[in-house]
Amino acid sequence: MGLLVVGSVAFDSVETPFGKAEDALGGSATFFSTSASYFTDVSLVAVVGDDFPEKHINFLKTRKIDLKGLQRTEGKTFRWKGKYGYDLNEAHTLSTELNVFESFKPKIPAEYKDAEVVFLANIDPDLQRDVLGQVKKPKIVAADTMNFWIEGKRDSLIKTLKLVDILLINDSEARQLSGEPNLVKAARKIAAYGPKTIVIKRGEHGVLMFHKESVFSAPAMPLEDVFDPTGAGDTFGGGFMGYLSSVMDWSENNMRKAIIMGSVMASFNVEDFSLNRIKNLEYSEIEARYREFKKLAHFEDI
Amino acid sequence: MGLLVVGSVAFDSVETPFGKAEDALGGSATFFSTSASYFTDVSLVAVVGDDFPEKHINFLKTRKIDLKGLQRTEGKTFRWKGKYGYDLNEAHTLSTELNVFESFKPKIPAEYKDAEVVFLANIDPDLQRDVLGQVKKPKIVAADTMNFWIEGKRDSLIKTLKLVDILLINDSEARQLSGEPNLVKAARKIAAYGPKTIVIKRGEHGVLMFHKESVFSAPAMPLEDVFDPTGAGDTFGGGFMGYLSSVMDWSENNMRKAIIMGSVMASFNVEDFSLNRIKNLEYSEIEARYREFKKLAHFEDI
Repeated sequence: MGLLVVGSVAFDSVETPFGKAEDALGGSATFFSTSASYFTDVSLVAVVGDDFPEKHINFLKTRKIDLKGLQRTEGKTFRWKGKYGYDLNEAHTLSTELNVFESFKPKIPAEYKDAEVVFLANIDPDLQRDVLGQVKKPKIVAADTMNFWIEGKRDSLIKTLKLVDILLINDSEARQLSGEPNLVKAARKIAAYGPKTIVIKRGEHGVLMFHKESVFSAPAMPLEDVFDPTGAGDTFGGGFMGYLSSVMDWSENNMRKAIIMGSVMASFNVEDFSLNRIKNLEYSEIEARYREFKKLAHFEDI
Repeated sequence: MGLLVVGSVAFDSVETPFGKAEDALGGSATFFSTSASYFTDVSLVAVVGDDFPEKHINFLKTRKIDLKGLQRTEGKTFRWKGKYGYDLNEAHTLSTELNVFESFKPKIPAEYKDAEVVFLANIDPDLQRDVLGQVKKPKIVAADTMNFWIEGKRDSLIKTLKLVDILLINDSEARQLSGEPNLVKAARKIAAYGPKTIVIKRGEHGVLMFHKESVFSAPAMPLEDVFDPTGAGDTFGGGFMGYLSSVMDWSENNMRKAIIMGSVMASFNVEDFSLNRIKNLEYSEIEARYREFKKLAHFEDI
């Protein structure tokens, strides 16, 4: 079976210099699974409140995302409010209401227990390990995290990292986690915690992948209109892991292709609010954008 | 004949978290011409004071840089003092003593007047135009500038840009010059001032080249030890223009190779203080680093 993701489903209210969206569909698992759904079968484990409308469920179903693991409990769905200035690399959180997410206990449905690929989106590292305790023997475990856990639950996070093959992380978080301002040294230090592959997301500056002794630098697509960067990192993760899961080939060459595929998906996502741009892509659009990345980065031997 | 560069020769005192250098050889024309000298014949026009030691002259001669245009006048050589924190992308200027550079009037020796390629390093845009008045009919004019002139001599700079084919500029300066936070829009606006090619230097995030309808994103080499970023931009410029001048082929493909060659030279330069690392390179080291850039950026078609 395909790709299992555990994370958040949320309502985002976002303001950027180009407009705003109120209570739009968001959350790490939502962006991730929508993006990954273009490449592979995805099963989503998350929690929503009783205010979560049927239309969002229906949308996720149109993407053929398996929702057996989507718990509905009494209360309100997780809500995040944020604002971006012209420097779209940095979100300013205005408010976070965890609501039902606060007592989220991921319960992996029996059908998902033999998942071969697991993505632990940015949730409490205790819960991330709890998920790994519930699945049998995944071939690949990838995870994301954030400054909140690096500061508040460092020991638990380090324990989780021992079990993780691929870590996806922002540049500032990589520096914070390792205590190293230099990203090459930061990646080496993080690799010593467990993950064989460190994928460092740098927003508009692209992605660095450290994998054994090799380094891959992927560009970001220079876009004229970036409307809303919310979810770009998770959309990247979905394209990256979705593509890898579809081919189940973890060679260096293929990981690099997957990094570009993630970048392709993220480049679409930032062109509109919420999931509006990645809701309904044609696969031919994805392939065409991949070829644009090829052109963008191409240079000849001397 | 080869490449003519007009700019500054200076003493730099630099402090970084990794050490310091006092009154070391620096200046835009020095870094540029040393870097370019690995690829083509370079003629340098600049001014130094009577405190400029013979050993530096001798060094520039070992690089076969033509110094007929290096004026020596009474007084002290230009001095810059700066400091970098762990974020090596940004220099904090501690002091600038223009000294003899304050009354610099570039005088192009008769032998240089038919220069085919001219690089106007970061000097007063009035002087940049004055230089262009003294040369006959260069095939290519490239220029650099900085925030100081964008703020203080905007109108003069815009006049200079009309005469420039290739502008090399930092990302923050591109934003400042165009009034556009988005770099794609910024490049388009700057192109409307004159330059057909806009090369945006982003420090550790690499380089973007906008050339007609195409965009090229070049990575920077992720280095474990960056000792001193002083001169990286000019060293980049020297590799870029030096390589182009050596082949006199301004096709898109070749411009891209030149961008990588500039990035190669800059990646060496930051590994040590002043010009220490690029003083004495073997061409085989340059080619090997170019191949490392190839590996760094390579990914396959899907």
